[in-house]
Formats: sequence, C-alpha cells, structure tokens
Amino acid sequence: MTKVAIYGATGYTGFELIRLLLSHHGVRITALSSEQFSDLPIDKAFAPFRGKLRKVAFGRMEQMRSEDVDAVFLALPHTVSASVAGEILSRGIRVIDLSADFRFRRIPLYESVYGVAHKTPALVGQAVYGLPEIYRNPLRKTRLAAVPGCYPAAVILALYPLLAEGLIEAKGIVADCKSGVSGGGRGPTLGFHYPEVEGGVRPYGLPQHRHKPEIDQELSLAAGRNINITFVPHLLPMVRGILATCYATAGAKVAGKDIENAYRKHYGKEQFVRICPADVLPSTKDVSGSNFCDVACRFDGKSRRVIAVSAIDNLVKGASGSAVQCFNLMMGFPEDEGLRSAPFFP
Amino acid sequence: MTKVAIYGATGYTGFELIRLLLSHHGVRITALSSEQFSDLPIDKAFAPFRGKLRKVAFGRMEQMRSEDVDAVFLALPHTVSASVAGEILSRGIRVIDLSADFRFRRIPLYESVYGVAHKTPALVGQAVYGLPEIYRNPLRKTRLAAVPGCYPAAVILALYPLLAEGLIEAKGIVADCKSGVSGGGRGPTLGFHYPEVEGGVRPYGLPQHRHKPEIDQELSLAAGRNINITFVPHLLPMVRGILATCYATAGAKVAGKDIENAYRKHYGKEQFVRICPADVLPSTKDVSGSNFCDVACRFDGKSRRVIAVSAIDNLVKGASGSAVQCFNLMMGFPEDEGLRSAPFFP
Amino acid sequence: MTKVAIYGATGYTGFELIRLLLSHHGVRITALSSEQFSDLPIDKAFAPFRGKLRKVAFGRMEQMRSEDVDAVFLALPHTVSASVAGEILSRGIRVIDLSADFRFRRIPLYESVYGVAHKTPALVGQAVYGLPEIYRNPLRKTRLAAVPGCYPAAVILALYPLLAEGLIEAKGIVADCKSGVSGGGRGPTLGFHYPEVEGGVRPYGLPQHRHKPEIDQELSLAAGRNINITFVPHLLPMVRGILATCYATAGAKVAGKDIENAYRKHYGKEQFVRICPADVLPSTKDVSGSNFCDVACRFDGKSRRVIAVSAIDNLVKGASGSAVQCFNLMMGFPEDEGLRSAPFFP
Amino acid sequence: MTKVAIYGATGYTGFELIRLLLSHHGVRITALSSEQFSDLPIDKAFAPFRGKLRKVAFGRMEQMRSEDVDAVFLALPHTVSASVAGEILSRGIRVIDLSADFRFRRIPLYESVYGVAHKTPALVGQAVYGLPEIYRNPLRKTRLAAVPGCYPAAVILALYPLLAEGLIEAKGIVADCKSGVSGGGRGPTLGFHYPEVEGGVRPYGLPQHRHKPEIDQELSLAAGRNINITFVPHLLPMVRGILATCYATAGAKVAGKDIENAYRKHYGKEQFVRICPADVLPSTKDVSGSNFCDVACRFDGKSRRVIAVSAIDNLVKGASGSAVQCFNLMMGFPEDEGLRSAPFFP
Repeated sequence: MTKVAIYGATGYTGFELIRLLLSHHGVRITALSSEQFSDLPIDKAFAPFRGKLRKVAFGRMEQMRSEDVDAVFLALPHTVSASVAGEILSRGIRVIDLSADFRFRRIPLYESVYGVAHKTPALVGQAVYGLPEIYRNPLRKTRLAAVPGCYPAAVILALYPLLAEGLIEAKGIVADCKSGVSGGGRGPTLGFHYPEVEGGVRPYGLPQHRHKPEIDQELSLAAGRNINITFVPHLLPMVRGILATCYATAGAKVAGKDIENAYRKHYGKEQFVRICPADVLPSTKDVSGSNFCDVACRFDGKSRRVIAVSAIDNLVKGASGSAVQCFNLMMGFPEDEGLRSAPFFP
Repeated sequence: MTKVAIYGATGYTGFELIRLLLSHHGVRITALSSEQFSDLPIDKAFAPFRGKLRKVAFGRMEQMRSEDVDAVFLALPHTVSASVAGEILSRGIRVIDLSADFRFRRIPLYESVYGVAHKTPALVGQAVYGLPEIYRNPLRKTRLAAVPGCYPAAVILALYPLLAEGLIEAKGIVADCKSGVSGGGRGPTLGFHYPEVEGGVRPYGLPQHRHKPEIDQELSLAAGRNINITFVPHLLPMVRGILATCYATAGAKVAGKDIENAYRKHYGKEQFVRICPADVLPSTKDVSGSNFCDVACRFDGKSRRVIAVSAIDNLVKGASGSAVQCFNLMMGFPEDEGLRSAPFFP
Repeated sequence: MTKVAIYGATGYTGFELIRLLLSHHGVRITALSSEQFSDLPIDKAFAPFRGKLRKVAFGRMEQMRSEDVDAVFLALPHTVSASVAGEILSRGIRVIDLSADFRFRRIPLYESVYGVAHKTPALVGQAVYGLPEIYRNPLRKTRLAAVPGCYPAAVILALYPLLAEGLIEAKGIVADCKSGVSGGGRGPTLGFHYPEVEGGVRPYGLPQHRHKPEIDQELSLAAGRNINITFVPHLLPMVRGILATCYATAGAKVAGKDIENAYRKHYGKEQFVRICPADVLPSTKDVSGSNFCDVACRFDGKSRRVIAVSAIDNLVKGASGSAVQCFNLMMGFPEDEGLRSAPFFP
Repeated sequence: MTKVAIYGATGYTGFELIRLLLSHHGVRITALSSEQFSDLPIDKAFAPFRGKLRKVAFGRMEQMRSEDVDAVFLALPHTVSASVAGEILSRGIRVIDLSADFRFRRIPLYESVYGVAHKTPALVGQAVYGLPEIYRNPLRKTRLAAVPGCYPAAVILALYPLLAEGLIEAKGIVADCKSGVSGGGRGPTLGFHYPEVEGGVRPYGLPQHRHKPEIDQELSLAAGRNINITFVPHLLPMVRGILATCYATAGAKVAGKDIENAYRKHYGKEQFVRICPADVLPSTKDVSGSNFCDVACRFDGKSRRVIAVSAIDNLVKGASGSAVQCFNLMMGFPEDEGLRSAPFFP
C-alpha cells in the first residue's frame, strides 16, 4: 500500500481528500496534520469519519513531518505550501499541492497576485499544472503537481477545446461563475456566516479575483496567444458546486459542427469530462460528490455567440478529486482509482 | 378607500400583492380570486394572512367579476389576462396586468414568443409598459399597465442608462441572470421539487427564454437601435431574488466618469433604484422583500469592458411591487405608498 | 414623534428593530450604536437600509449616550445591558432590554445560569418580563422591559394556557425546539459557518441550555407550582423561525373541549397569537417576518397525551417584535403599531 | 457477479440503490424499471449516472420482468410491491422490498394503516424485518426482506437498547423526528414545492403518521410489552437526513452506567451504529451519504429523564443502505460491501 499524508487535513479540501482516499484501493492514509484542531482527539476533529481513521497519526504539521510516507497532499494556505514542499521533495516524497504556490509559470505574476514573495522559486520549474485532461503525460513524470484553483478548473475545461482549436475570438470572453460556499474555506467570517449567505446571491472579487490570472495563463497557452477574460465569481447559497457560464464570439467561418467536433476531440475519451447530450445543460447537482466535469456548448450561428457551460463539484474536480487524479498518474495507479464513486443525488 | 381586486391571488405574485396592499393606506382589498384554491376557506387558502382578510370576497374569477372595485390586479397566466382585461376596462376599472399579454408592442412577436394568438389585440395600443423609472408619465395616464417580467425588470434597469446615453456597443451584450425559485411560479413540477433544486445551480431556457424578446424590445427603444442580447437565466437554490450580471463593451471614447454620470442622471432621484457606493456590489439579500433595485456598474478602461449588475426581489420590484408602483401612478397615490417597507434582513 | 435609540444596532435583533421601527408611525430613530461596525459609514453598516437612515446618528455606544431620546432599545450582550441600563433610566428614558439581564426574578439564578455577577441587582425589581400576552398591564406602567428569550417566547406561549388552567401534569413536560440560525447571533463561528450548517440538523445545548431556567420560571408562575421541563433546542438550516413542539400529559379528567377553551380564553382576543384551525398546524413560514405566534394543541383522549405546537419568527415575536410591542405599551401607542406588516411568504 | 434489478429505479431510493450498488464489488446492475421515465434514454433518466449504466436494461416493470437476475430491489409504492413480489420469489429470486408491504406482522394492522387489502398475505410470514442490527440471523436465511421505513429505522435504533434492557418506562415515550424532504419521495406536490419548504419548518402527520404503528410493533417486540409512542415528524428545509430526538423516563433504579452499558452491549460491535463520545451529539451532516446511524443517550439522574438521539441519512440507513445491508446478508457478501463510502461532508 502506498502511504500518504495530508497536511492541512481539517479544511474542506482535506476532508474531501480523506473521503476519496478512504475508497482508494492502493492507499493507506498514515498521517493527518492540522494547526487548528490538533488538540482534539482524531475522532472529534473528523467526526464524520469516526471509526475510519484508526492507526492514523494526527497532530501539527511539524509533528507529522517525520512520518514515513510516499506522497504528501498539501491542503495548506498559499505560501505555507511553498515553505514545506522543498523539504518533502528532497526526501524523495511526491507532493500534490492544492494551494496556488506552484500554479504560476511566471513567479512575478504569482507574487503580484498573491502579494507575497515566493518562498521557493527554484521549485516552480519542476511543477506541473494539475489538470490531467491537458497535462496528462507531464503529470506522469512529475514529482510536484500544482492542482488548479476551483474556478480555473471549471473555466478552463469549459473553454479549452474552443481555444485550442482556434474557434473563438480572443477578445471579449466572459466567464460568469457561480460557486458554493465551501470554496471559501472553513474559516468562519461574516461573509460566510450562515444567515448572511442563505437565501441570496452576490457577485464578489471585482475588479479582479486572483483566479483570473491563473485562468488567463492556461487559456493563453491553449490559444497560443494572449487571453484576457472578464471573470466574475458569484457566491450562491449552497455548499458545493461551481457552474461556469462562458460567453464568447465564434470566428467568422466557424460552424456548429466544428464546435461539436472540438469537444469530442478533446474530451471524447476522457473519463471525467462528460459532454452533455444536445438537449441537456450541465447542473452542479449532476456531478456533486464526483470527479465529473459536465460540459455543454451552445452556438447561435446568426449572432456567432457561443455559450460554453461547465459544472463541477468544487471540492472534487475543483480540488481534491483532481489532486487524487494527479496522484494516480504520478504513482502509476489507474487514473480513476479512488474516484469511481457516482454522484450524490439528490 | 380605493377598492381593489386581485385575480389569481393564490400564486406567489398574488400573495405578494396582498402583503404589499395590506400596508397601503389608501387601499382596501375587497375581492380575491383563485381557480385552484377557491374551495378552501380564505384563512386556509392564505394561511400566512390569517386574520387579515376579514370581509374580503373570495372565489373563482367568475364569481368575483361582479365586485364593485376601482382597480384589478391580474396575477393570471398569460392569455387569461388578455381574455378578461377588456371587459374589466370597459367598466371603467383600471387594470394592472402582471402577465406578458400586454408587454409587447408588436403583436406578432408576442404571438410567436408565447405560441398563441392574442385574444384582444385592440387593447395592446392602450397598454403602457409598467416600469415607472422609464414610463412614469405615460403610466400616470393609462388605464392598463403591463408590468414587466422579472428578468426584464432586472436587466433593463441594469443597462438602461448605458444604452440611453449611448455608452456601450449594441453588439455582444450579455445578461447572465440568477433567479430564485419563486420566479417559476407555484405550480409543483419536478424541476422545482425541493430535492431537485436544493444545493445546486443550473442554467435553463436555452436557446431562448421568452423574456429575451421583451428585454430586447425595451433595450432597443432605449438605445434607438436594434439590440439583441445574449441572455442566460439560471435557477438558484433560494426562494426570492434576481441578480443580473450584464457584460458589455464601452464605446471608444467612454470614460468611467461618463458611466457614473449616466446612472446618476437616470436614477439619482429615483426612490427605488439605489446606486451602490463605489466599493459595494448589489446583493439580493439587501433588497429582499422591498421594492428596491440596487445597481452598480464597473468599468475597466483598458479592456473597455463594462459590468453592470442589478439586484431585485423578483416578487417585488420584479412583479408585485412594480405593479403597486404603477397602480399608485395610475390612481394618483404617492409612488411609494404600500412600498415603504424596508428590506428583510437577514 | 417619539425619539428612540438602538444600542447594538448591527446585530440581527438590531437590524430587525430598525426594520420594524421604520414602519412605526409614532417613532423616529435618532441614534444607532455599534461597537464593531462604527467605523463604517452608516449606509455600509446597514446596507439593506441604505437611504432610509438619513439624519440618524451612528457610532459607538459611548458616543451615542448623550443623544436626547425618549426610549432606548438595548440589543446588547448580556451583562452589557445591565451595565448601562441604570444610567439611561436615571435620565428618565425608558429602556427595552433584549438581553437576559432583567428576565430573572431571582438574581442568584441569573448569576448561576450566565456565570456572572449581576451588575445592577437593584434594577431587577423594576423590570417587567416583556411578554404582553401575560404581563400587559404591568408593562403599561414599567420603565424597564425585559424582552423574553426567543425559545422562552415560543415555549411559554405554547404551554401557558394549559398550565394556567391546570390542565396538564407538572411532570414530564418536554419542549423540543427547532430554531433558525439567526438565533445564534451575528458573530461568525465555526458552528454557524454556512457549510457546517446547510443541509443538516443537530441538537445542542445539552445537558442544559440557558433558556431552560427562564422557561421554568415563567411556567412555574403560570402553574402556581414548580415546573421543570425537558428542553432540547435544535439548529436547523434556515435563517429565521422557531418551532416549539411541546409534549405533556393531561390531567385525568381533562377533555379536548377544556383544552380548546383554555386557548380561546387566553388568546381569543390577542392580536398576535393566532390559534390554528382544527386541521392546520403551525409552520414557521406562516409567521415569517411578522409578530404572530401561531399555536395549535392536539389531544389524544385515550393516552391523555397533549401536543402543543407554536411557531414564531425568532427575530420578531422572539425578540424585536415583542420589544416593539412592549415599547408600545410603555409609551401608550396602539399595541400593534409598527407590527402590522403581514408575514413574508414564500 | 450477482445480477440485480431495481424496480422503481427513478425514485430517490432507486437512485440511491444505484449509487450504492455501483460501488459494490460483487454486483452487476442488469435491469432498471420505471413507470414514469421509461420513455427517456437511460442517460437522461439517470443524468447523474451518465456513462455508468452501459449495458443496463431499462424500461417499464413489465418489460424488465423477464430479465435473468439473482435479486430484485423493489423501490415501489406500497401495494405494488405486494403485487409483484410473489411471482419474483417463485422464480427463486431474492426480494428486498423497500415498501411497507411486508413490514407488518399483523396483516389487519397493515390493512388499516394503509387503507388497502393486502395483495399477498401468504408471503407476510416469510418476510424478515430488514434491520440487521436486530434481525441479522433471520435475514441471512430469508428470501424476502422488508426494509424498515426511514423514521422507524431512526427511532428503533435510538430506543432499542433502552427497551430491550428494560431501562425505561413503557409509558410516555416521545419520538420527535426531523426529516429532510427526500423522505417524501420524488413526486412533485405543493407541500414539497421548493418555495413552500425552503426557510421553514413544520410538523405534519398528526394525529397519526403511518410509521407510528410500525415503530410500535418493533419497540413492543423489543420491550416484551405493549409500547405506544407519541410520534411527531417534522419537515425540514434540507434534502437528506433524519434526526430522532426521543424522550423517555428511566426506571426507578436505573443508573447512567446501565444506559451506557446497554448501548455498548447492543451496538459496540456494530459496523454501522456509532455511539457518540460523551460530549458529542448526533448530527445528520456527520452521517450524510453513509450507512451510519449515530446515537447518543443523555440521562438526568435527578429527574430520571432520558434523551436518546439518533441521526441517519434517510436514503441510506433509512432505506437503500439498509436494503443493501440486508441483501449482503441474504447473499453471503460481507455486510458492509457497497456501504463503505465515508460520509459526505460538508
């Protein structure tokens, strides 16, 4: 059995990693760290998993660092990941990082977006962006995966075929995103206090959410030219799910068939990206709890407007599921191991 | 006291009309009709209003038609309004219609969008579109108000100043709308069954929701040229509220100041449209239960992208509140009579 | 116009007081205090009320103390109310306190339940428990009202007629209560963080919630003997509302008619307590946003089991609505002034 | 691989059976029936499971009856199960019935509760009540399992140790239950229409819900004497979960230790019943999506009041999970096969 540790295990992505890895046939979770809850008995810190975490070490990250493991999932705040990844990698342990620390190819961009100096710039070149649908082969060979942000995962998967095939104009792309509250993390603040959220919707993150440069980076690489999207995230009264509704303009000679073909070419063989049938639109409930990303693209030939929609569970395909998928590629497991559970409906 | 009847009173807009009119100092509700619930005692059909509807007649519309009233609110399905409005008007009674029957200036457009023949085309010319912020004076003189659809109310108020002042390009306007479930009415269907909605979000109404032509009609009039927006509504797990996030491209010479001035010019003196301060974005919770429409507009000079956002309570400013506002104008009441209640928060 | 101040105005009961008092025809809000949000402009601190609070002073409590007002609502944490009430009363200003500080007749009980020394024990004797349905006349004469806790308001109103008329046994009374999250206040904590609450229900407060002694005090007074209920509160995924389902055993000779008569005797003329028809049970949605308390009592003659159910909006009848009702009695206003708004449905 | 069919697969318990059985290593789903959705392609009828149901037959029950299977799950309305179970059993196929048809030992009781004549009374004697924690051995030998109702599962598991060990009085037991909306099934009705449910709570089913006699039957068997509980179900604004808060009076000589021992004796070795630590109370979120039943019991020695609380996911332990657990016992699989997935949190 491959031994894994999760650092930052009491956040929502940590919980979700536990849930997924408990169903992984090749893995044993041996250590969990938490800075905030490490004083609690493990059965209280992880109440839903009571009885399922026997023999797992639990404590602050410093205490867990000596555990003998094959891979570490870092579900840590940005900058913290960068400060510990190097040491872990140096011990020959693979790292799957869910923070933003290794997602940017250009360090100054990271530093300006996150307002901090990068702690281990030398590692950035080793990292592979953790979206297997685009970077499957590099992920097989890397020792450091940088799992995408939740919004980038949804938006990139919605738009990638259109940009990679040159079917839409670079200008004027809009990604209007709707997210559940778990995307905001587990730290209680007024903005996520139950009565402030329930029953309403609001945009946030204007003028610029920090996921936008990450999206632009990957879409630009896909398109082979500079992409600068308009991105507005919205907070919805639900726990899980991101729906990305993306608007673009098709090139002059593009036909509906071209768009269909582009999605089929890129996703036809993907296990986790499901192209919706012609009369179905993605819904976050259809993917909840699963690693699926449902996509659909609608094209109005007359106006040349393209609407590409994707739905993911932000904690699975938008975080911990993609992380496990990367881990599987890095370790040689079947790509869907630990990720086979069906969506949770209703 | 002005005597009013509400036809179709057991739907959500009917309930909301009752709630608002019960606080109207110049009005007495004298008759309520319902086709579906008229067998119930009035206190059971309107359980929340138990004790507040003494001496109000209640029955099927046919039974209520002989009541002596000064105005009738029609909270009826489309086509039904058209079939009864003429007779009511002929008795000198004012009509405030919440259906789509009198919203379209071009009858063939109505007929193609709703897939029916118009029952009283001769009345269409008498109707005034019930958005007081645009049609205040005509509403003062009309006997027939056609209250806007909920999405049109939100989208038109978000974009009107930009188009009326010629600040944005006609092409490529997107309105991404998020609605609570009450907008779908009170008829139970699988799509609005609690477990199917709760915890998720989905787009619907593609390729074309029937509110789009209504929006296009009014925006085209505002702009003085043909507007053909891209409109995608989404169903959210909440009861009330519409948030419209609208995307457009500013004209070449437009500055941020111009946009600010446009909103101030059109809404600076409006009682029910609140321009958000610079660092605040509209949230449906801030307007819930009230007739307010909160608006904000953000402009990125470099990309010339404009983002206009509005938030309304779909049952108030998006339906029954606008209806009462029209009624006040038609009857000579202060425009905010019955509409002064503050938002309901949290 | 009577001038009022609200101290602690940025909590949920403060917001609700503002909402209600804005519709009160005899009142002008002149001062609002907040310790936490006083640095914000008033329109940001009270975003939903933007535009409705012109000319209102806003700042920390210390700054507001010199305002010339006729009455002060204290929406403050317990112990803070006690520390300021005396000085306010000494200036001839009436005080309506929403904290627990003046609810207990026996100071040692208060001190043991809340774990603090009472700051102004001398005032306790002047206070009247703010439930007008029971203490209407004393409230008319007092200068200090102690508004009940939200659970006590619901439970006492459910059981009062049964105990006052001696219809149920003192032993074995159970009050199983279900509350919305706003009852927990506006301070963000993990237990009220959106993703931790949404989609689930849990009991809390065992072995003993601090509202239990308050309930026992009032029920014992009603019964004329010692009552010691079993009280379990539950946290529900909703913003507002308390439903109290109370279980008791009827005395040996009690008939259904006696129970019916008891409720009619005590509540038949009450404006805000609505006895449900025979085939209707209370629902929090039927009272939401209003000062109503809906009650129903079911009796099974064979087993002598009695089930008394009440539903209130915890922020209205369970806090700010009762506070305004007390204020009206204390100031000589009609008891329902500012409280006439109909429930908010759906 | 064991071949199974699910009849009534498009209801919520049907969906949940599919989700669980897709993770069962010994099972292949070969046929799914639906009366209402059989005209749809299988990928639309089961949108969340798109891509996971290849080679599965789908149609109306009549069409599926000839499929060669080893076991059939009946997720059908009551009376329909009874009308098809006999024929299936006669072909040597095992039946796991989720309806009420075979839960009652006394046919006249079933007939009076459900208001119908039993269609196959001769089969009743063969059925075993499908609660493995109580009927494990009989379930191993039966060919017909009658899976408990969702409320009975929660209430019986909460109270069983207390009654089996004679620790509480037979009289005055109260079960106050809180349920998510999925318990009401997938048929859209006004009572489960999203805006009617969201944001509120209400009791229902008084004077007598049909699960009460089922609970009484099993509790009476446990106690060895007649039990007649007071049972009030409540509808909560959430999709999944039942919380049962049960109140009883301990016998005169009962100590806290006795109660603790009773739970440990009956559940200490159970895989799916988790006794909460001393300072933890059950929460439906801690069991969501899993087959766990979390239980806790609190005892106040002075008043002799006992509070026993249980939490289940109504669609798993309260229906489809117990069904799979029964199936495993009947077919010789490990009892937790297909049921190992961890709770879904948050």
